[in-house]
Amino acid sequence: MRDFSPNHDWLSINTATIRKQRGAEVPLDRIVDQCAERGIRAISPWRDQVAAVGLDRIARQLKAHGIGLSGYCRGGFYPAPDAAGLKAALDDTRRAIDEAKTLDAPCLVLVVGALPGALAGQAQYKDIGRARAEVHDGIAASLEYAREVGMPLAIEPLHPMQAAERACINTLEQALDICDQLGEGIGVACDVYHVWWDPKLEQQIRRAGKKRLLAYHICDWLVPTRDLVSDRGMMGDGVIDLPLIRGWVEGAGYAGFQEVEIFSELDWWKRDPDEVLSTCKQRLRHC
Amino acid sequence: MRDFSPNHDWLSINTATIRKQRGAEVPLDRIVDQCAERGIRAISPWRDQVAAVGLDRIARQLKAHGIGLSGYCRGGFYPAPDAAGLKAALDDTRRAIDEAKTLDAPCLVLVVGALPGALAGQAQYKDIGRARAEVHDGIAASLEYAREVGMPLAIEPLHPMQAAERACINTLEQALDICDQLGEGIGVACDVYHVWWDPKLEQQIRRAGKKRLLAYHICDWLVPTRDLVSDRGMMGDGVIDLPLIRGWVEGAGYAGFQEVEIFSELDWWKRDPDEVLSTCKQRLRHC
Repeated sequence: MRDFSPNHDWLSINTATIRKQRGAEVPLDRIVDQCAERGIRAISPWRDQVAAVGLDRIARQLKAHGIGLSGYCRGGFYPAPDAAGLKAALDDTRRAIDEAKTLDAPCLVLVVGALPGALAGQAQYKDIGRARAEVHDGIAASLEYAREVGMPLAIEPLHPMQAAERACINTLEQALDICDQLGEGIGVACDVYHVWWDPKLEQQIRRAGKKRLLAYHICDWLVPTRDLVSDRGMMGDGVIDLPLIRGWVEGAGYAGFQEVEIFSELDWWKRDPDEVLSTCKQRLRHC
Repeated sequence: MRDFSPNHDWLSINTATIRKQRGAEVPLDRIVDQCAERGIRAISPWRDQVAAVGLDRIARQLKAHGIGLSGYCRGGFYPAPDAAGLKAALDDTRRAIDEAKTLDAPCLVLVVGALPGALAGQAQYKDIGRARAEVHDGIAASLEYAREVGMPLAIEPLHPMQAAERACINTLEQALDICDQLGEGIGVACDVYHVWWDPKLEQQIRRAGKKRLLAYHICDWLVPTRDLVSDRGMMGDGVIDLPLIRGWVEGAGYAGFQEVEIFSELDWWKRDPDEVLSTCKQRLRHC
Protein backbone atom coordinates (compact mmCIF):
# COMPACT_ATOMS: atom_id res chain seq x y z
CA MET A 1 0.00 0.00 0.00
CA ARG A 2 1.06 3.54 -0.68
CA ASP A 3 2.44 5.53 2.23
CA PHE A 4 0.41 8.70 2.75
CA SER A 5 2.39 9.94 5.74
CA PRO A 6 4.99 12.14 3.97
CA ASN A 7 2.53 14.32 2.05
CA HIS A 8 -1.03 14.68 0.86
CA ASP A 9 -0.30 14.31 -2.83
CA TRP A 10 -3.11 11.80 -3.24
CA LEU A 11 -5.74 13.82 -1.42
CA SER A 12 -8.62 15.17 -3.47
CA ILE A 13 -11.41 17.29 -2.07
CA ASN A 14 -14.90 16.71 -3.34
CA THR A 15 -16.16 20.26 -3.23
CA ALA A 16 -19.37 19.16 -1.52
CA THR A 17 -17.19 18.78 1.56
CA ILE A 18 -16.70 22.52 1.91
CA ARG A 19 -19.55 23.83 -0.17
CA LYS A 20 -20.91 25.22 3.07
CA GLN A 21 -18.55 26.88 5.52
CA ARG A 22 -19.74 28.11 8.91
CA GLY A 23 -23.21 27.18 7.66
CA ALA A 24 -23.17 29.36 4.55
CA GLU A 25 -22.82 28.36 0.89
CA VAL A 26 -19.46 29.39 -0.59
CA PRO A 27 -18.82 29.88 -4.33
CA LEU A 28 -16.62 27.38 -6.10
CA ASP A 29 -13.94 29.89 -7.15
CA ARG A 30 -13.36 30.69 -3.49
CA ILE A 31 -13.22 26.96 -2.68
CA VAL A 32 -10.66 26.39 -5.44
CA ASP A 33 -8.51 29.18 -4.03
CA GLN A 34 -8.77 27.68 -0.55
CA CYS A 35 -7.62 24.31 -1.85
CA ALA A 36 -4.77 25.89 -3.83
CA GLU A 37 -3.57 27.83 -0.77
CA ARG A 38 -3.26 24.53 1.09
CA GLY A 39 -1.38 22.68 -1.62
CA ILE A 40 -4.26 20.39 -2.52
CA ARG A 41 -3.64 18.93 -5.96
CA ALA A 42 -7.11 17.74 -6.95
CA ILE A 43 -10.78 18.40 -6.44
CA SER A 44 -14.05 16.95 -7.63
CA PRO A 45 -16.55 19.75 -8.23
CA TRP A 46 -20.32 19.66 -8.63
CA ARG A 47 -22.09 20.92 -11.71
CA ASP A 48 -24.27 23.43 -9.92
CA GLN A 49 -21.21 24.93 -8.25
CA VAL A 50 -19.43 25.18 -11.59
CA ALA A 51 -22.46 26.69 -13.31
CA ALA A 52 -22.87 29.34 -10.62
CA VAL A 53 -19.38 30.70 -11.31
CA GLY A 54 -19.04 29.83 -14.98
CA LEU A 55 -17.50 26.78 -16.64
CA ASP A 56 -14.72 28.56 -18.53
CA ARG A 57 -13.76 30.66 -15.57
CA ILE A 58 -13.41 27.58 -13.36
CA ALA A 59 -11.46 25.76 -16.09
CA ARG A 60 -9.00 28.66 -16.32
CA GLN A 61 -8.70 28.98 -12.56
CA LEU A 62 -7.93 25.28 -12.13
CA LYS A 63 -5.32 25.45 -14.86
CA ALA A 64 -3.70 28.52 -13.33
CA HIS A 65 -3.46 26.77 -9.95
CA GLY A 66 -2.33 23.46 -11.43
CA ILE A 67 -5.24 21.70 -9.77
CA GLY A 68 -6.60 18.61 -11.45
CA LEU A 69 -9.87 16.77 -11.09
CA SER A 70 -10.43 13.33 -9.55
CA GLY A 71 -13.91 13.26 -11.06
CA TYR A 72 -16.84 15.46 -12.00
CA CYS A 73 -20.19 15.32 -10.19
CA ARG A 74 -22.46 14.33 -11.81
CA GLY A 75 -24.61 12.90 -14.57
CA GLY A 76 -27.47 10.45 -14.38
CA PHE A 77 -30.89 10.71 -12.74
CA TYR A 78 -32.29 8.82 -15.70
CA PRO A 79 -35.68 7.41 -14.61
CA ALA A 80 -38.66 9.54 -15.47
CA PRO A 81 -42.40 9.04 -15.74
CA ASP A 82 -42.48 9.72 -19.49
CA ALA A 83 -40.41 9.85 -22.67
CA ALA A 84 -39.84 13.59 -22.43
CA GLY A 85 -38.37 13.14 -18.96
CA LEU A 86 -36.10 10.33 -20.10
CA LYS A 87 -34.86 12.45 -23.01
CA ALA A 88 -34.24 15.46 -20.76
CA ALA A 89 -32.05 13.30 -18.52
CA LEU A 90 -30.04 12.09 -21.51
CA ASP A 91 -29.58 15.62 -22.78
CA ASP A 92 -28.51 16.80 -19.37
CA THR A 93 -25.97 14.01 -18.96
CA ARG A 94 -24.62 14.83 -22.43
CA ARG A 95 -24.01 18.39 -21.26
CA ALA A 96 -22.32 17.03 -18.14
CA ILE A 97 -20.00 14.98 -20.36
CA ASP A 98 -19.09 18.10 -22.31
CA GLU A 99 -18.38 20.03 -19.12
CA ALA A 100 -16.26 17.17 -17.80
CA LYS A 101 -14.22 17.35 -21.02
CA THR A 102 -13.75 21.09 -20.67
CA LEU A 103 -12.53 20.60 -17.11
CA ASP A 104 -10.31 17.69 -18.18
CA ALA A 105 -11.93 15.35 -15.64
CA PRO A 106 -10.77 11.72 -15.58
CA CYS A 107 -14.39 10.57 -15.36
CA LEU A 108 -17.96 11.74 -15.05
CA VAL A 109 -19.60 10.28 -11.96
CA LEU A 110 -23.11 8.93 -12.53
CA VAL A 111 -25.68 9.04 -9.76
CA VAL A 112 -28.21 7.14 -11.75
CA GLY A 113 -31.52 8.18 -10.20
CA ALA A 114 -34.32 6.04 -8.81
CA LEU A 115 -38.11 6.25 -8.52
CA PRO A 116 -39.15 9.43 -10.32
CA GLY A 117 -40.70 11.94 -7.95
CA ALA A 118 -39.47 10.17 -4.80
CA LEU A 119 -36.85 12.82 -4.12
CA ALA A 120 -39.66 15.36 -3.98
CA GLY A 121 -41.60 13.07 -1.62
CA GLN A 122 -44.06 11.47 -4.05
CA ALA A 123 -42.91 8.55 -6.18
CA GLN A 124 -44.68 8.44 -9.53
CA TYR A 125 -44.33 4.68 -9.66
CA LYS A 126 -43.07 1.98 -7.29
CA ASP A 127 -41.56 -0.48 -9.71
CA ILE A 128 -37.85 -0.25 -8.95
CA GLY A 129 -37.26 -2.87 -11.65
CA ARG A 130 -38.61 -0.40 -14.20
CA ALA A 131 -36.35 2.33 -12.82
CA ARG A 132 -33.41 -0.05 -13.14
CA ALA A 133 -34.27 -0.84 -16.75
CA GLU A 134 -34.51 2.88 -17.51
CA VAL A 135 -31.14 3.42 -15.85
CA HIS A 136 -29.56 0.66 -17.89
CA ASP A 137 -30.86 2.12 -21.14
CA GLY A 138 -29.95 5.65 -20.08
CA ILE A 139 -26.37 4.71 -19.27
CA ALA A 140 -26.08 2.82 -22.56
CA ALA A 141 -27.22 5.91 -24.46
CA SER A 142 -24.91 8.26 -22.54
CA LEU A 143 -22.02 5.89 -23.05
CA GLU A 144 -22.24 6.15 -26.84
CA TYR A 145 -21.56 9.87 -26.66
CA ALA A 146 -19.07 9.52 -23.83
CA ARG A 147 -17.01 7.14 -25.93
CA GLU A 148 -17.11 9.48 -28.91
CA VAL A 149 -15.55 12.28 -26.90
CA GLY A 150 -13.42 10.04 -24.69
CA MET A 151 -14.96 10.66 -21.28
CA PRO A 152 -15.11 7.59 -19.00
CA LEU A 153 -18.36 7.17 -17.05
CA ALA A 154 -18.17 6.07 -13.42
CA ILE A 155 -21.34 4.52 -11.99
CA GLU A 156 -21.54 5.30 -8.29
CA PRO A 157 -23.59 2.75 -6.38
CA LEU A 158 -25.37 4.57 -3.58
CA HIS A 159 -26.22 3.17 -0.19
CA PRO A 160 -29.46 1.15 -0.21
CA MET A 161 -31.03 3.73 2.09
CA GLN A 162 -30.98 6.05 -0.94
CA ALA A 163 -32.49 3.51 -3.34
CA ALA A 164 -35.86 5.24 -3.57
CA GLU A 165 -34.72 8.81 -4.08
CA ARG A 166 -31.25 9.00 -5.59
CA ALA A 167 -29.91 5.80 -7.11
CA CYS A 168 -31.38 2.39 -7.75
CA ILE A 169 -27.89 1.00 -8.32
CA ASN A 170 -26.95 0.01 -4.79
CA THR A 171 -24.08 -2.44 -4.86
CA LEU A 172 -20.79 -2.72 -6.66
CA GLU A 173 -21.91 -6.08 -8.00
CA GLN A 174 -24.96 -4.53 -9.62
CA ALA A 175 -22.89 -1.68 -11.08
CA LEU A 176 -20.26 -4.07 -12.41
CA ASP A 177 -22.89 -6.27 -13.99
CA ILE A 178 -23.97 -3.23 -15.99
CA CYS A 179 -20.37 -2.36 -16.85
CA ASP A 180 -19.84 -5.90 -18.13
CA GLN A 181 -22.96 -5.66 -20.25
CA LEU A 182 -21.91 -2.34 -21.74
CA GLY A 183 -18.22 -2.95 -22.32
CA GLU A 184 -15.53 -0.30 -22.63
CA GLY A 185 -15.41 3.26 -21.34
CA ILE A 186 -17.35 2.65 -18.16
CA GLY A 187 -16.47 1.75 -14.59
CA VAL A 188 -17.40 2.53 -11.01
CA ALA A 189 -16.86 5.19 -8.38
CA CYS A 190 -16.33 3.32 -5.13
CA ASP A 191 -17.44 5.45 -2.19
CA VAL A 192 -16.79 3.72 1.12
CA TYR A 193 -19.83 5.39 2.67
CA HIS A 194 -22.12 3.60 0.26
CA VAL A 195 -20.47 0.19 0.11
CA TRP A 196 -18.61 -0.43 3.37
CA TRP A 197 -21.36 -2.73 4.71
CA ASP A 198 -21.42 -5.03 1.66
CA PRO A 199 -20.44 -8.64 2.44
CA LYS A 200 -19.26 -8.96 -1.16
CA LEU A 201 -17.17 -5.79 -1.10
CA GLU A 202 -13.72 -7.38 -1.26
CA GLN A 203 -14.82 -9.80 -3.96
CA GLN A 204 -16.38 -7.08 -6.09
CA ILE A 205 -13.44 -4.68 -5.72
CA ARG A 206 -11.20 -7.46 -6.98
CA ARG A 207 -13.61 -8.11 -9.82
CA ALA A 208 -13.63 -4.42 -10.75
CA GLY A 209 -9.87 -4.26 -11.01
CA LYS A 210 -7.84 -1.33 -12.27
CA LYS A 211 -9.92 -1.12 -15.43
CA ARG A 212 -13.22 -0.42 -13.70
CA LEU A 213 -12.10 1.39 -10.53
CA LEU A 214 -12.28 4.97 -11.77
CA ALA A 215 -12.66 6.81 -8.48
CA TYR A 216 -12.36 6.13 -4.76
CA HIS A 217 -14.22 8.27 -2.23
CA ILE A 218 -13.65 8.34 1.51
CA CYS A 219 -15.39 9.60 4.62
CA ASP A 220 -16.84 7.62 7.55
CA TRP A 221 -20.05 6.04 8.82
CA LEU A 222 -21.06 7.50 12.16
CA VAL A 223 -22.84 5.63 14.93
CA PRO A 224 -25.46 6.76 15.39
CA THR A 225 -26.16 8.26 11.97
CA ARG A 226 -28.72 10.99 12.55
CA ASP A 227 -29.75 11.74 9.00
CA LEU A 228 -29.96 9.62 5.88
CA VAL A 229 -28.30 12.19 3.64
CA SER A 230 -26.33 14.77 5.52
CA ASP A 231 -24.56 13.12 8.45
CA ARG A 232 -21.38 11.71 6.97
CA GLY A 233 -18.38 11.59 9.22
CA MET A 234 -14.73 12.57 8.86
CA MET A 235 -12.39 9.66 8.28
CA GLY A 236 -11.56 8.08 11.63
CA ASP A 237 -14.68 9.26 13.42
CA GLY A 238 -16.85 6.30 12.45
CA VAL A 239 -16.78 2.55 12.00
CA ILE A 240 -15.40 2.07 8.48
CA ASP A 241 -12.15 0.13 8.39
CA LEU A 242 -10.57 2.47 5.84
CA PRO A 243 -7.08 0.94 5.65
CA LEU A 244 -8.62 -2.48 5.05
CA ILE A 245 -10.75 -1.25 2.15
CA ARG A 246 -7.89 0.80 0.67
CA GLY A 247 -5.79 -2.33 0.78
CA TRP A 248 -8.39 -4.11 -1.34
CA VAL A 249 -8.68 -1.17 -3.73
CA GLU A 250 -4.93 -0.81 -4.20
CA GLY A 251 -4.60 -4.58 -4.42
CA ALA A 252 -7.01 -4.43 -7.33
CA GLY A 253 -4.76 -1.91 -9.07
CA TYR A 254 -6.20 1.46 -8.11
CA ALA A 255 -3.49 4.07 -7.68
CA GLY A 256 -5.40 7.32 -7.93
CA PHE A 257 -6.71 9.98 -5.59
CA GLN A 258 -8.44 9.49 -2.25
CA GLU A 259 -11.36 11.84 -2.70
CA VAL A 260 -12.90 13.13 0.51
CA GLU A 261 -16.65 13.57 0.12
CA ILE A 262 -18.47 14.61 3.27
CA PHE A 263 -22.01 15.91 3.31
CA SER A 264 -22.58 17.12 6.80
CA GLU A 265 -25.28 19.63 7.49
CA LEU A 266 -25.01 18.61 11.14
CA ASP A 267 -21.30 19.08 11.65
CA TRP A 268 -18.55 19.80 9.10
CA TRP A 269 -20.53 22.30 7.05
CA LYS A 270 -20.79 24.39 10.20
CA ARG A 271 -17.03 24.61 10.65
CA ASP A 272 -14.21 26.75 9.36
CA PRO A 273 -12.64 25.56 6.08
CA ASP A 274 -9.20 25.73 7.67
CA GLU A 275 -10.25 23.13 10.19
CA VAL A 276 -11.98 20.93 7.61
CA LEU A 277 -9.10 20.90 5.14
CA SER A 278 -6.35 20.49 7.71
CA THR A 279 -8.29 17.61 9.26
CA CYS A 280 -8.63 15.97 5.83
CA LYS A 281 -4.87 16.24 5.32
CA GLN A 282 -4.07 14.78 8.74
CA ARG A 283 -6.58 11.97 8.59
CA LEU A 284 -5.49 10.90 5.11
CA ARG A 285 -2.41 9.34 6.72
CA HIS A 286 -4.54 6.79 8.51
CA CYS A 287 -6.92 6.01 5.68
CA MET B 1 -51.75 -15.33 -4.98
CA ARG B 2 -54.02 -15.57 -1.98
CA ASP B 3 -56.97 -13.23 -1.84
CA PHE B 4 -56.84 -11.16 1.35
CA SER B 5 -60.01 -9.18 0.64
CA PRO B 6 -62.60 -11.39 2.40
CA ASN B 7 -60.91 -11.45 5.81
CA HIS B 8 -57.72 -10.81 7.71
CA ASP B 9 -57.00 -14.42 8.60
CA TRP B 10 -53.39 -14.08 7.46
CA LEU B 11 -52.67 -10.87 9.34
CA SER B 12 -50.21 -11.06 12.21
CA ILE B 13 -49.27 -8.13 14.39
CA ASN B 14 -45.69 -7.81 15.48
CA THR B 15 -46.24 -6.35 18.90
CA ALA B 16 -43.60 -3.70 18.31
CA THR B 17 -46.23 -2.06 16.10
CA ILE B 18 -48.43 -1.15 19.05
CA ARG B 19 -45.96 -1.39 21.89
CA LYS B 20 -46.47 2.33 22.26
CA GLN B 21 -49.97 3.77 22.01
CA ARG B 22 -50.59 7.51 22.13
CA GLY B 23 -46.87 7.77 22.91
CA ALA B 24 -46.91 5.54 25.99
CA GLU B 25 -45.60 2.01 26.43
CA VAL B 26 -48.40 -0.56 26.83
CA PRO B 27 -47.95 -3.96 28.49
CA LEU B 28 -48.15 -7.05 26.33
CA ASP B 29 -51.18 -8.59 28.05
CA ARG B 30 -53.17 -5.48 27.14
CA ILE B 31 -51.87 -5.69 23.55
CA VAL B 32 -52.89 -9.35 23.33
CA ASP B 33 -56.39 -8.46 24.51
CA GLN B 34 -56.60 -5.66 21.95
CA CYS B 35 -55.65 -8.06 19.17
CA ALA B 36 -58.11 -10.68 20.40
CA GLU B 37 -60.93 -8.14 20.54
CA ARG B 38 -60.33 -7.40 16.86
CA GLY B 39 -60.21 -11.00 15.70
CA ILE B 40 -56.50 -11.01 14.97
CA ARG B 41 -55.28 -14.60 14.85
CA ALA B 42 -51.54 -14.18 15.29
CA ILE B 43 -48.93 -11.95 16.84
CA SER B 44 -45.15 -11.85 17.08
CA PRO B 45 -44.12 -10.62 20.52
CA TRP B 46 -40.80 -9.31 21.78
CA ARG B 47 -38.91 -10.91 24.63
CA ASP B 48 -38.78 -7.83 26.81
CA GLN B 49 -42.52 -7.41 26.50
CA VAL B 50 -43.08 -11.05 27.44
CA ALA B 51 -40.68 -10.85 30.37
CA ALA B 52 -42.37 -7.74 31.74
CA VAL B 53 -45.67 -9.58 32.08
CA GLY B 54 -44.40 -13.12 32.65
CA LEU B 55 -43.82 -15.92 30.17
CA ASP B 56 -46.33 -18.40 31.57
CA ARG B 57 -49.02 -15.80 31.91
CA ILE B 58 -48.63 -14.73 28.27
CA ALA B 59 -48.59 -18.36 27.15
CA ARG B 60 -51.88 -19.00 28.98
CA GLN B 61 -53.45 -15.81 27.68
CA LEU B 62 -52.59 -16.61 24.07
CA LYS B 63 -53.99 -20.11 24.45
CA ALA B 64 -57.20 -18.79 26.02
CA HIS B 65 -57.68 -16.39 23.12
CA GLY B 66 -56.69 -18.92 20.48
CA ILE B 67 -53.98 -16.56 19.23
CA GLY B 68 -50.93 -18.12 17.63
CA LEU B 69 -47.47 -16.76 16.93
CA SER B 70 -45.96 -15.95 13.55
CA GLY B 71 -42.55 -15.71 15.18
CA TYR B 72 -40.77 -14.73 18.36
CA CYS B 73 -38.48 -11.69 18.59
CA ARG B 74 -35.62 -12.30 19.06
CA GLY B 75 -32.31 -14.05 19.60
CA GLY B 76 -28.88 -13.17 18.30
CA PHE B 77 -26.64 -10.17 18.97
CA TYR B 78 -23.70 -12.52 18.91
CA PRO B 79 -20.57 -10.40 18.36
CA ALA B 80 -18.77 -9.33 21.49
CA PRO B 81 -15.33 -7.99 22.34
CA ASP B 82 -14.40 -11.05 24.40
CA ALA B 83 -15.18 -14.70 25.09
CA ALA B 84 -17.41 -13.92 28.05
CA GLY B 85 -19.54 -11.67 25.88
CA LEU B 86 -19.81 -14.31 23.16
CA LYS B 87 -20.87 -16.91 25.73
CA ALA B 88 -23.45 -14.57 27.25
CA ALA B 89 -25.03 -14.08 23.82
CA LEU B 90 -25.23 -17.83 23.29
CA ASP B 91 -26.79 -18.36 26.71
CA ASP B 92 -29.29 -15.62 26.07
CA THR B 93 -30.30 -17.02 22.70
CA ARG B 94 -30.71 -20.44 24.31
CA ARG B 95 -33.18 -18.90 26.75
CA ALA B 96 -34.96 -17.25 23.83
CA ILE B 97 -35.29 -20.67 22.18
CA ASP B 98 -36.83 -22.07 25.35
CA GLU B 99 -39.28 -19.18 25.54
CA ALA B 100 -40.19 -19.63 21.89
CA LYS B 101 -40.96 -23.30 22.65
CA THR B 102 -43.14 -22.37 25.61
CA LEU B 103 -45.06 -19.93 23.40
CA ASP B 104 -45.29 -22.49 20.60
CA ALA B 105 -43.70 -20.11 18.12
CA PRO B 106 -43.06 -21.38 14.59
CA CYS B 107 -39.58 -19.83 14.65
CA LEU B 108 -37.21 -17.70 16.66
CA VAL B 109 -36.16 -14.62 14.73
CA LEU B 110 -32.44 -13.85 14.89
CA VAL B 111 -31.21 -10.29 14.72
CA VAL B 112 -27.60 -11.29 14.66
CA GLY B 113 -25.79 -8.24 16.00
CA ALA B 114 -22.93 -6.28 14.49
CA LEU B 115 -19.95 -4.29 15.76
CA PRO B 116 -19.92 -4.67 19.54
CA GLY B 117 -20.49 -1.36 21.28
CA ALA B 118 -21.72 0.42 18.14
CA LEU B 119 -25.31 0.44 19.34
CA ALA B 120 -24.13 2.39 22.36
CA GLY B 121 -22.23 4.79 20.10
CA GLN B 122 -18.70 3.41 20.42
CA ALA B 123 -17.68 0.39 18.36
CA GLN B 124 -15.10 -1.74 20.11
CA TYR B 125 -13.68 -2.87 16.80
CA LYS B 126 -14.27 -1.98 13.15
CA ASP B 127 -13.67 -5.32 11.49
CA ILE B 128 -17.12 -6.25 10.22
CA GLY B 129 -15.60 -9.44 8.82
CA ARG B 130 -14.76 -10.48 12.37
CA ALA B 131 -18.31 -9.71 13.48
CA ARG B 132 -19.60 -11.81 10.61
CA ALA B 133 -17.41 -14.73 11.59
CA GLU B 134 -18.62 -14.47 15.19
CA VAL B 135 -22.20 -14.39 13.94
CA HIS B 136 -21.65 -17.49 11.85
CA ASP B 137 -20.19 -19.40 14.77
CA GLY B 138 -22.87 -18.11 17.13
CA ILE B 139 -25.70 -19.21 14.87
CA ALA B 140 -24.06 -22.61 14.43
CA ALA B 141 -23.89 -23.05 18.20
CA SER B 142 -27.48 -21.89 18.77
CA LEU B 143 -28.67 -24.15 15.99
CA GLU B 144 -27.42 -27.26 17.77
CA TYR B 145 -29.71 -26.59 20.70
CA ALA B 146 -32.55 -25.32 18.50
CA ARG B 147 -32.53 -28.61 16.60
CA GLU B 148 -32.55 -30.62 19.82
CA VAL B 149 -35.73 -28.93 20.96
CA GLY B 150 -37.22 -28.48 17.50
CA MET B 151 -37.27 -24.69 17.19
CA PRO B 152 -36.49 -23.33 13.71
CA LEU B 153 -34.20 -20.29 13.62
CA ALA B 154 -35.01 -17.48 11.20
CA ILE B 155 -32.13 -15.18 10.30
CA GLU B 156 -33.47 -11.69 9.61
CA PRO B 157 -31.21 -9.70 7.31
CA LEU B 158 -31.42 -6.08 8.37
CA HIS B 159 -31.15 -3.07 6.10
CA PRO B 160 -27.52 -2.10 5.38
CA MET B 161 -28.09 1.19 7.22
CA GLN B 162 -28.21 -0.96 10.40
CA ALA B 163 -25.05 -2.93 9.61
CA ALA B 164 -22.93 -1.23 12.26
CA GLU B 165 -25.32 -1.39 15.19
CA ARG B 166 -27.84 -4.20 14.83
CA ALA B 167 -27.06 -6.83 12.23
CA CYS B 168 -24.08 -7.50 9.99
CA ILE B 169 -26.22 -9.86 7.90
CA ASN B 170 -27.67 -7.45 5.39
CA THR B 171 -28.96 -9.33 2.38
CA LEU B 172 -31.04 -12.43 1.80
CA GLU B 173 -28.16 -13.85 -0.23
CA GLN B 174 -25.79 -13.53 2.71
CA ALA B 175 -28.34 -15.09 5.08
CA LEU B 176 -29.07 -17.95 2.70
CA ASP B 177 -25.38 -18.65 2.23
CA ILE B 178 -25.20 -19.20 5.99
CA CYS B 179 -28.32 -21.37 5.93
CA ASP B 180 -26.80 -23.50 3.21
CA GLN B 181 -23.61 -23.89 5.21
CA LEU B 182 -25.50 -24.92 8.33
CA GLY B 183 -28.15 -27.20 6.85
CA GLU B 184 -31.49 -28.07 8.41
CA GLY B 185 -33.57 -26.20 10.97
CA ILE B 186 -32.68 -22.72 9.82
CA GLY B 187 -34.15 -20.23 7.38
CA VAL B 188 -34.84 -16.53 6.97
CA ALA B 189 -37.31 -13.90 8.08
CA CYS B 190 -37.94 -11.74 5.03
CA ASP B 191 -38.90 -8.22 6.09
CA VAL B 192 -39.70 -6.03 3.10
CA TYR B 193 -38.39 -2.95 4.91
CA HIS B 194 -34.91 -4.41 5.01
CA VAL B 195 -34.73 -6.05 1.60
CA TRP B 196 -37.05 -4.20 -0.81
CA TRP B 197 -34.14 -2.33 -2.44
CA ASP B 198 -32.09 -5.46 -3.23
CA PRO B 199 -31.55 -6.04 -6.97
CA LYS B 200 -31.26 -9.77 -6.22
CA LEU B 201 -34.44 -9.92 -4.16
CA GLU B 202 -36.58 -11.95 -6.55
CA GLN B 203 -33.73 -14.34 -7.26
CA GLN B 204 -32.94 -14.89 -3.59
CA ILE B 205 -36.60 -15.34 -2.57
CA ARG B 206 -36.85 -18.04 -5.21
CA ARG B 207 -33.64 -19.59 -3.91
CA ALA B 208 -34.98 -19.56 -0.35
CA GLY B 209 -38.13 -21.44 -1.30
CA LYS B 210 -40.72 -22.76 1.08
CA LYS B 211 -38.08 -24.51 3.15
CA ARG B 212 -36.17 -21.38 4.12
CA LEU B 213 -38.92 -18.73 4.12
CA LEU B 214 -39.96 -18.92 7.76
CA ALA B 215 -41.52 -15.48 8.18
CA TYR B 216 -42.63 -12.55 6.06
CA HIS B 217 -42.82 -9.04 7.52
CA ILE B 218 -44.51 -6.05 5.95
CA CYS B 219 -44.60 -2.29 6.40
CA ASP B 220 -43.44 0.44 4.01
CA TRP B 221 -40.44 2.62 3.15
CA LEU B 222 -41.30 6.29 3.44
CA VAL B 223 -39.85 9.09 1.30
CA PRO B 224 -38.30 10.90 2.94
CA THR B 225 -37.31 8.58 5.78
CA ARG B 226 -36.57 10.85 8.72
CA ASP B 227 -34.92 8.39 11.08
CA LEU B 228 -32.81 5.30 10.51
CA VAL B 229 -34.65 3.20 13.10
CA SER B 230 -38.04 4.53 13.97
CA ASP B 231 -39.70 5.90 10.86
CA ARG B 232 -41.26 2.88 9.20
CA GLY B 233 -44.44 3.47 7.27
CA MET B 234 -47.83 1.75 7.11
CA MET B 235 -48.30 -0.45 4.07
CA GLY B 236 -49.36 1.72 1.15
CA ASP B 237 -47.83 4.94 2.47
CA GLY B 238 -44.38 4.39 0.97
CA VAL B 239 -42.63 3.13 -2.13
CA ILE B 240 -42.45 -0.64 -1.62
CA ASP B 241 -44.28 -2.61 -4.29
CA LEU B 242 -45.84 -5.00 -1.77
CA PRO B 243 -48.03 -7.06 -4.13
CA LEU B 244 -45.02 -7.67 -6.36
CA ILE B 245 -42.88 -8.95 -3.51
CA ARG B 246 -45.71 -11.04 -2.06
CA GLY B 247 -46.12 -12.59 -5.48
CA TRP B 248 -42.48 -13.67 -5.38
CA VAL B 249 -42.78 -14.95 -1.82
CA GLU B 250 -45.93 -16.95 -2.50
CA GLY B 251 -44.48 -18.14 -5.78
CA ALA B 252 -41.59 -19.55 -3.77
CA GLY B 253 -44.06 -21.50 -1.62
CA TYR B 254 -44.64 -19.25 1.38
CA ALA B 255 -48.23 -19.50 2.62
CA GLY B 256 -47.99 -18.13 6.14
CA PHE B 257 -48.82 -14.91 7.94
CA GLN B 258 -48.22 -11.37 6.77
CA GLU B 259 -46.67 -9.92 9.89
CA VAL B 260 -46.97 -6.16 10.26
CA GLU B 261 -43.89 -4.74 11.97
CA ILE B 262 -43.83 -0.97 12.21
CA PHE B 263 -41.46 0.95 14.46
CA SER B 264 -42.62 4.49 14.33
CA GLU B 265 -41.71 6.86 17.09
CA LEU B 266 -42.62 9.67 14.70
CA ASP B 267 -46.11 8.56 13.76
CA TRP B 268 -47.92 5.29 14.49
CA TRP B 269 -46.74 4.95 18.08
CA LYS B 270 -48.44 8.27 18.74
CA ARG B 271 -51.84 7.02 17.56
CA ASP B 272 -54.73 5.15 19.04
CA PRO B 273 -54.49 1.32 18.76
CA ASP B 274 -57.96 1.21 17.21
CA GLU B 275 -56.72 3.28 14.33
CA VAL B 276 -53.48 1.31 13.97
CA LEU B 277 -55.09 -2.11 13.98
CA SER B 278 -58.02 -1.20 11.75
CA THR B 279 -55.59 0.36 9.28
CA CYS B 280 -53.49 -2.83 9.29
CA LYS B 281 -56.60 -4.89 8.53
CA GLN B 282 -57.71 -2.61 5.70
CA ARG B 283 -54.29 -2.26 4.13
CA LEU B 284 -53.62 -5.99 4.20
CA ARG B 285 -56.02 -6.33 1.26
CA HIS B 286 -53.67 -4.40 -0.98
CA CYS B 287 -50.42 -5.97 0.20
